[in-house]
Amino acid sequence: MNSNLEKAKKLCAFRAVDQIIEDNLVVGIGSGSTIIYGVQRLAERVKSENLKISCVPTSFQARQLIKEYNLTLTDLESNPELDVAIDGADEVDENFVLIKGGGGCLTQEKIIASAAKNFIVIADYRKNSKYLGQNWHTGIPIEVIPFAYVAVSRKIELLYGGKCTVRTSSGKAGPLLTDNSNFIIDWKFPVREQGYDWKRLNEEITLIPGVVETGLFVDITSKVYFGNEDGTITIKPE
Amino acid sequence: MNSNLEKAKKLCAFRAVDQIIEDNLVVGIGSGSTIIYGVQRLAERVKSENLKISCVPTSFQARQLIKEYNLTLTDLESNPELDVAIDGADEVDENFVLIKGGGGCLTQEKIIASAAKNFIVIADYRKNSKYLGQNWHTGIPIEVIPFAYVAVSRKIELLYGGKCTVRTSSGKAGPLLTDNSNFIIDWKFPVREQGYDWKRLNEEITLIPGVVETGLFVDITSKVYFGNEDGTITIKPE
Repeated sequence: MNSNLEKAKKLCAFRAVDQIIEDNLVVGIGSGSTIIYGVQRLAERVKSENLKISCVPTSFQARQLIKEYNLTLTDLESNPELDVAIDGADEVDENFVLIKGGGGCLTQEKIIASAAKNFIVIADYRKNSKYLGQNWHTGIPIEVIPFAYVAVSRKIELLYGGKCTVRTSSGKAGPLLTDNSNFIIDWKFPVREQGYDWKRLNEEITLIPGVVETGLFVDITSKVYFGNEDGTITIKPE
Repeated sequence: MNSNLEKAKKLCAFRAVDQIIEDNLVVGIGSGSTIIYGVQRLAERVKSENLKISCVPTSFQARQLIKEYNLTLTDLESNPELDVAIDGADEVDENFVLIKGGGGCLTQEKIIASAAKNFIVIADYRKNSKYLGQNWHTGIPIEVIPFAYVAVSRKIELLYGGKCTVRTSSGKAGPLLTDNSNFIIDWKFPVREQGYDWKRLNEEITLIPGVVETGLFVDITSKVYFGNEDGTITIKPE
């Protein structure tokens, strides 16, 4: 395990929870390895300060974390508006456009993010990019209705180029199924230093019949906490 | 049974199939009571003229019809582009904007319609409206990820008014599940004689995280065959 990386994850998660969380909030809890530290810190504060916090999970993993740390579990049906949601990201560009969905829960994550008054991202230094695809390039995850995956892939490649691949699951022969029983297409878009009009691209792809949601999060992020390799934190926008 | 109504359905379905279908086509087959006549006529022509037609269904009902009439069944994975798709509609306005989804298969229907070079609508006179909601008003069906149904309903009502109701199933206690295991919200929008900017409204609603597809079909219809009460047919655009 890379200890600087784990320290960076812990650092940004703790700082975000310390700055954002106050009493009587409904909080969306995201998925991923950095969120684990966030939930850990949230549980410490709830216990020591006797806070009243209700948590809405974005995934099975998030739900298990909430239960494991004895936090109060609620759902979006009871709380269709959240005060804040905290989640990780696979990559963040300089305009706070995110790629999410490496863990396959992009649809739930986007629903929760869009239901929150404030959406807070916590991420380690590897995720901090000038443009999407700069640091690594596993593509943009897109959740689709299974029988439409070929038709949707062709349309995306025709519109923007690149290459669409259906994500497979390591534990079975065949495509991975999301928690909504759909497929995920990983779209390796042609990386460009000048980026794209991500808002427009995201709308165009989301409007293709058969697309459920994309892993592009545009104009939804309130604040990003990056844990840096040198043990400092960068908060954006400043 | 209203014999004029059944005659009107049969008339438009037969005429459409007679005008549209030629040899060597891949044809999308929609759902509903009017489509039954279309498949009946298609099977007659395939047999008598020895046509090579492959059919892609939009629903379990469509698939059963294709098999029942011994037509060749294929799927969207093998044929991501269709030559033509034929389907019914719940209502058609003067600009060929449709409401679909009374049968709960709006997502599959929209995927198939958008994959077809030509999308042909067959409908009886009751569906021929100047503006949506003129003749009857069961609302616009919207397929949503189940856990988001309250959040999505609130957003739609906030944006455009009206009332959202989750569709229930007569055979079980609780909401109807679509073939994609989702819920359907029926949105009773405020009916306006001047209509709405349906294209924009449809985009706004589809882009709400948690919405899979809407039952609004805008800018997708090539031709509509209306079977009239007096035994004539109206074809639009002329």
